[in-house]
Amino acid sequence: MISFNEKLDRYAELAVKIGVNIQPNQFLYISTSTDNVELVRLITKKAYEAGAKQVFVDFADDQINRLRYELAPADSFDFYPHWKTEERNWLAEQGAAFISIVSQSPDLLAGIESSRISAFQKATGKALSKYREYAQSDKISWNVIAASSKDWAAKVFPELPQDQQVEQLWNAIFKAVRVDVADPIQAWKTLDESLHDKVSYLNEKKYHKLHYRAPGTDLTIELPKNHLWCGGGSVNVNGKEFMANMPTEEVFTAPFKTGVNGFVSSTKPLSYGGNIIDQFKITFENGRIVDVSAEQGEEVLKQLVATDEGSHYLGEVALVPHNSPISQSGLLFYNTLFDENASNHLAIGSAYAFNIEGGKTMSREDIAENGLNQSLTHVDFMIGSDKMDIDGITEDNNVEPIFRQGSWAF
Amino acid sequence: MISFNEKLDRYAELAVKIGVNIQPNQFLYISTSTDNVELVRLITKKAYEAGAKQVFVDFADDQINRLRYELAPADSFDFYPHWKTEERNWLAEQGAAFISIVSQSPDLLAGIESSRISAFQKATGKALSKYREYAQSDKISWNVIAASSKDWAAKVFPELPQDQQVEQLWNAIFKAVRVDVADPIQAWKTLDESLHDKVSYLNEKKYHKLHYRAPGTDLTIELPKNHLWCGGGSVNVNGKEFMANMPTEEVFTAPFKTGVNGFVSSTKPLSYGGNIIDQFKITFENGRIVDVSAEQGEEVLKQLVATDEGSHYLGEVALVPHNSPISQSGLLFYNTLFDENASNHLAIGSAYAFNIEGGKTMSREDIAENGLNQSLTHVDFMIGSDKMDIDGITEDNNVEPIFRQGSWAF
Repeated sequence: MISFNEKLDRYAELAVKIGVNIQPNQFLYISTSTDNVELVRLITKKAYEAGAKQVFVDFADDQINRLRYELAPADSFDFYPHWKTEERNWLAEQGAAFISIVSQSPDLLAGIESSRISAFQKATGKALSKYREYAQSDKISWNVIAASSKDWAAKVFPELPQDQQVEQLWNAIFKAVRVDVADPIQAWKTLDESLHDKVSYLNEKKYHKLHYRAPGTDLTIELPKNHLWCGGGSVNVNGKEFMANMPTEEVFTAPFKTGVNGFVSSTKPLSYGGNIIDQFKITFENGRIVDVSAEQGEEVLKQLVATDEGSHYLGEVALVPHNSPISQSGLLFYNTLFDENASNHLAIGSAYAFNIEGGKTMSREDIAENGLNQSLTHVDFMIGSDKMDIDGITEDNNVEPIFRQGSWAF
Repeated sequence: MISFNEKLDRYAELAVKIGVNIQPNQFLYISTSTDNVELVRLITKKAYEAGAKQVFVDFADDQINRLRYELAPADSFDFYPHWKTEERNWLAEQGAAFISIVSQSPDLLAGIESSRISAFQKATGKALSKYREYAQSDKISWNVIAASSKDWAAKVFPELPQDQQVEQLWNAIFKAVRVDVADPIQAWKTLDESLHDKVSYLNEKKYHKLHYRAPGTDLTIELPKNHLWCGGGSVNVNGKEFMANMPTEEVFTAPFKTGVNGFVSSTKPLSYGGNIIDQFKITFENGRIVDVSAEQGEEVLKQLVATDEGSHYLGEVALVPHNSPISQSGLLFYNTLFDENASNHLAIGSAYAFNIEGGKTMSREDIAENGLNQSLTHVDFMIGSDKMDIDGITEDNNVEPIFRQGSWAF
């Protein structure tokens, strides 16, 4: 039986060794809530022990954040501090690694005027566009992990007594990131290989289109000619491996921006900007979102789609079998890092440059010419279920099963 | 009986209303340790309620800070992030208010190589020189308050059981900042008036020199011709009152840089850069420090004096009677914010421009020509006791008592 402290220590080790794979003399930037001080201290220690030059921690506080949304003047939300932009850009240029720890309550901003949220999301998107280009073209090593927190745990385990919720969410996180197995680092290597097998298969197939069918869903997604599937570990511009998400169970590529037609329905709630969007349906014509409706959070969803021109299009198509470990837990995390790894998903917004051949070193213009979407935003949403079939359609119109009833069919 | 939460709430109110006196549409910047999240949330709320435009919180973590000093490469300590400099400078230019919350353990950096500490202190001093000019010439409203923390409280109350230390230090802080009286805001106004009375008396006297006598001390300090005594509330460039320190019991002015002669002995330990310097003696010739010795922390003291040319001279001379409330508590806080307000003190390093007539709007060059010291650093140290006599020497060599046996003599 491994103690909590030991698990937390292993988790920190995974983030540093597998997540961003810190190199001697590298800078590390950690963005986190104040709730996660203990974990951040462990990560910092491991990073310095691995030779990090300096660890910069950007602490935010969820309650202070909410106070701002509640009380600050209405016209103050389009401001993003230029020194924070400079911090990320400068560190990215120096080849720093970036760890984000997510722990926010899915309902943190419930009841806040959505125009305030969207104004700040937009300002953030603009301010961090250069940083996002770095991340989306593998120029830097980056990693997203999660930490249990009181309010988030209460949302995931509403039926449990309050004093057990945080611990239960930690257990679920530790399980999802394979901290509780005998050799976590080896477990990640095994996972990485199995995802790379799927990637190799799909990259050999070079499907022209994917066709999704499920209750509420009939969607065709064209893929760029030179698309690449990815999954598991990535390799940065300096040839160093890193793992962008922990957990990760997906393989994914970029859609052809104007080649998406039909409609798709969500199968899990989406927590976006501290609000929940649930039971929603999106209709596409030639790639563009022409209609959205939601039983919950429709206004927030509409504001998301209205962020910019690119937020009317998709930027990612990802495959996760319904029998993946996180899906099998039966838990709804109300957190994309977990829920997207329990379900097929798509992303509204910008595509990853590395999802086309040569994309990592292409100009923005060339990336767009290859049919990849660009946007200030990138928001995944879940569409998978055990009722979903997906076909791959080849260049010469052969139809081949990829998913049947939510699971791999090859 | 007022509850702890109520006292903390009043304290936050004092910091916002009396400390920086937040105005509508003003920015507020708070620097704090992660230990003080609750207090920061309260201050943030009060600031927004008073009309603040945005509250920026710069959280640091003491343990993470120490990890860096222990584990980072030796050549990495002369780096201060330029984006942090830009943050302060930009906000200062926008007329932001600045609150610092101190809670650090006096021993935080005990055992760390002093060259690492002095390298970073020097880098910080350089990086924040423009900000310091803003603060030292009353161009901005700024305020320093304290918060109890585990390690600091253990140092102040080593004889108490561990579970009572933090609470006892809070009680001492609340008492020192007059949170536990019926009307704290009125109490601060009364204090302010009594300090201003002393200030008026001394400013009318226009003493040419001060002469300090006590065991281990025989020191003469010349004052600039146009020196001004200050104490209690300040007024910023926009005519708004603020209180730079809470607590504050001192009246102070600037010495004439090259007019300090003799020797002075410390009467309380000084916590500087996470290390304690104790039982030290400093000798001056024509203003310059020509000899230092200390029973504890001598190396750290020498590094402090060696920071730059200006750190070889004094920048502040402050009077606090030995019967001041904080002194009467009999506590040794190992924290300058408190200990300096229990004792006469001096400061090594830069002088406040507002301590000479017209100084707030003078150029750096004019300030220096008027005999005020300039430096990257400003560190107060305590010299007062119930055995200290101070005379004021007028321009025509009359000798008048200012302090006798540690108390006001007029």
